[in-house]
Amino acid sequence: MKIAIIIFDKFTDIDLFLMWDLLNRVRVENWEVKILGEKDAHVSATNIEVKTHGRIEEANDASAVLFVSGQGTRDRIADENWLKRFDLNAEKQFIGSICSGALILARLGLLQNKTATTYPTSKTLLESFGVEVIEKPFVAHGKTATAGGCLAQQYLIGWVIENLADAEWKDLVLKSIQPVGEGLFFDDAETLTKLYAPITKAAEK
Amino acid sequence: MKIAIIIFDKFTDIDLFLMWDLLNRVRVENWEVKILGEKDAHVSATNIEVKTHGRIEEANDASAVLFVSGQGTRDRIADENWLKRFDLNAEKQFIGSICSGALILARLGLLQNKTATTYPTSKTLLESFGVEVIEKPFVAHGKTATAGGCLAQQYLIGWVIENLADAEWKDLVLKSIQPVGEGLFFDDAETLTKLYAPITKAAEK
Repeated sequence: MKIAIIIFDKFTDIDLFLMWDLLNRVRVENWEVKILGEKDAHVSATNIEVKTHGRIEEANDASAVLFVSGQGTRDRIADENWLKRFDLNAEKQFIGSICSGALILARLGLLQNKTATTYPTSKTLLESFGVEVIEKPFVAHGKTATAGGCLAQQYLIGWVIENLADAEWKDLVLKSIQPVGEGLFFDDAETLTKLYAPITKAAEK
Repeated sequence: MKIAIIIFDKFTDIDLFLMWDLLNRVRVENWEVKILGEKDAHVSATNIEVKTHGRIEEANDASAVLFVSGQGTRDRIADENWLKRFDLNAEKQFIGSICSGALILARLGLLQNKTATTYPTSKTLLESFGVEVIEKPFVAHGKTATAGGCLAQQYLIGWVIENLADAEWKDLVLKSIQPVGEGLFFDDAETLTKLYAPITKAAEK
């Protein structure tokens, strides 16, 4: 069960690290989360350097492929050589995006005849690709989904976890980041320890 | 206006990167956000390596000092040499923590006779330091505050931004990460561009 997160230079920090952290809370056998890019490391919009675990081609056989967002998406959608390295299968793979990552899905032809959502500042550009953009946090059609607004990653990652693990893991992982007293409670302490069991992910080896 | 975020090995990824990303959306003159540690880089609970912008002593003259959380807090609160390097002033500096970062505040003597909040799995340990732990997302007393549950960083960072910038920046920054249709709307696109104005922070130089 490999989940690929695609990054690039000038990505939005929280749009990588919220999904990364949530996905890494799942303790299911062979659950493997990898950050993929076209270089050994990419630099975020705020100059944080993040090492990648592999190249973007690895996404082509992943169970789920997630695209982050950020100013860097503008360069990605103009880079035909980068786009050509993807050979995704919307019938077999769960494919999703947060915020302006939807622009990449559109350029890969994954949003044809579908509604989608994105960040407010990317709406017009996404529409220019012929996509009907709707004002919702999360829009899924089959195995393809878009989410808009950083915290809408909760819907996107919940959807991935529910489909690749189960609803119980989804609920526990999403609960674990809620504010205390507002979804997460002191009585949850015992249940939360499941999230910190020993890890056997490839990325940790 | 220097804001120091204190990290250490085995920190929880989202507890650094949510506050980091939010704080970096403020465009106020001389607004400077620095990640401080005791090494050139620290490694998160999921093996993400993050370079620091300086050593922890730099926190002693910061306007705000924020402690992240994670399994690594257990080692920090047992390390007298590390704790001794802090010389914080609760009268002059805004000091805060997310989740188990409250354990460090307690060990630095900053929670004496105060109520506080923390992550459910750290409640008992925080109580053992004589702190009355209450089931709320955010507890502030004067310039010292604790937040519990990753997403409660919104309260903590909102409090910092409101105090060091203003309420308008607080509202805009917090709005900018909400899910589309649930706090953030397509009509906000124009207003959001303020968050992407050119940056003049020291950490970027």
